Amino acid sequence: MPATRRTPTQERGQVTQKAVVEGAAEVFDRIGFGNASLSMIAEASGISQGSMYFHFKSKEQIALAVIHEQHARSLPVMARVSEQYVGALERLIRASRAIVDQLETDAVVRAGIRLALDEGSLSAPAGSFYEDWIAGTASELETALEAGELVSSMSAADLARTLIGFFTGVQLTAQATIGRSEVAVSVNRMWIFTIDAIVPEEHRAAANRIREHAFSGL
Amino acid sequence: MPATRRTPTQERGQVTQKAVVEGAAEVFDRIGFGNASLSMIAEASGISQGSMYFHFKSKEQIALAVIHEQHARSLPVMARVSEQYVGALERLIRASRAIVDQLETDAVVRAGIRLALDEGSLSAPAGSFYEDWIAGTASELETALEAGELVSSMSAADLARTLIGFFTGVQLTAQATIGRSEVAVSVNRMWIFTIDAIVPEEHRAAANRIREHAFSGL
Repeated sequence: MPATRRTPTQERGQVTQKAVVEGAAEVFDRIGFGNASLSMIAEASGISQGSMYFHFKSKEQIALAVIHEQHARSLPVMARVSEQYVGALERLIRASRAIVDQLETDAVVRAGIRLALDEGSLSAPAGSFYEDWIAGTASELETALEAGELVSSMSAADLARTLIGFFTGVQLTAQATIGRSEVAVSVNRMWIFTIDAIVPEEHRAAANRIREHAFSGL
Repeated sequence: MPATRRTPTQERGQVTQKAVVEGAAEVFDRIGFGNASLSMIAEASGISQGSMYFHFKSKEQIALAVIHEQHARSLPVMARVSEQYVGALERLIRASRAIVDQLETDAVVRAGIRLALDEGSLSAPAGSFYEDWIAGTASELETALEAGELVSSMSAADLARTLIGFFTGVQLTAQATIGRSEVAVSVNRMWIFTIDAIVPEEHRAAANRIREHAFSGL
């Protein structure tokens, strides 16, 4: 169908946009959103400012594209984990490890997660990644709570919001204090704590084996 | 002693610096560090740019003064809580509530805690507030772990780092997703979770009464 086939110009456009998103993420990650200038982003992207301006009218538009791309990279990783593992707790533990690995290796993921928190800098509803993430986590927890695999006095929704808050804070404070290399160690500790809090005692040893396996090689 | 008495000029200088710190905090809190300009800070402070420049040579210097002031405001609040309550867990719960109240009412505290995380934007070692905070929490936890008031497979230091990460993430994600008014509710949930994780079952009801009392009125 010629009508839906991409033209060379469209393909070039996508290549440019991808380069800008990756260059911008690298700059945001290194010096923060506010300190980044359009000329720095253009330079990091290897794209001329004129060409960049053709696709993005402002730094904020670029930041939203970075958040969008982080979303596009992180959600499939979590979906793949969901397919691969059966138990809800194992899925959550494995998904957190997968995101930690993305945080370590991918500036787009680091910048996107950070930007989505920075509600003061961005006027658009950047919190939607968090809400999607919380909803996905809540649905896993719901199943596990119903099955008695997990126990809590909180609802699945409140528990999910709490855990996503924990994950976010643990990785941000680890990066800010002891360095990026400590993020996995810190998230592993979050799970030690979480298993003590919500896994019934008779399943705790099994849960810790899953955790140790998911966070092996630290 | 005339040598140590402040001159009118020094006093005026302190008034100016305080106004700049508070004006800057209000701007940083509203639009983020990077988006803030020196002229916006001067305007929010009610101080002329020339007079501001006499005390602060850069936006980064102002940000460090905001972090310093947050430190100066938060640490005494935590110290007061320490004097007022006896048990380690109660001290930690009460201290978190006191910080939540500061976060709700004081832009300097909001901006300072946020800036200290933004290691990309500031070159100075802004993480030191976190390290002090973690050390203070660890020393409380140490006592409680030794007394059997709390139980964990983690060391007091690791547990402290984890809890400070939790607190940070819970309040940041609450602000970014559901709004500032939900911070106390979210931190209360953090404690429900934490009590399940580290308080021995026979003391859990008492711990939850302490929590409910500290977070009453939500």
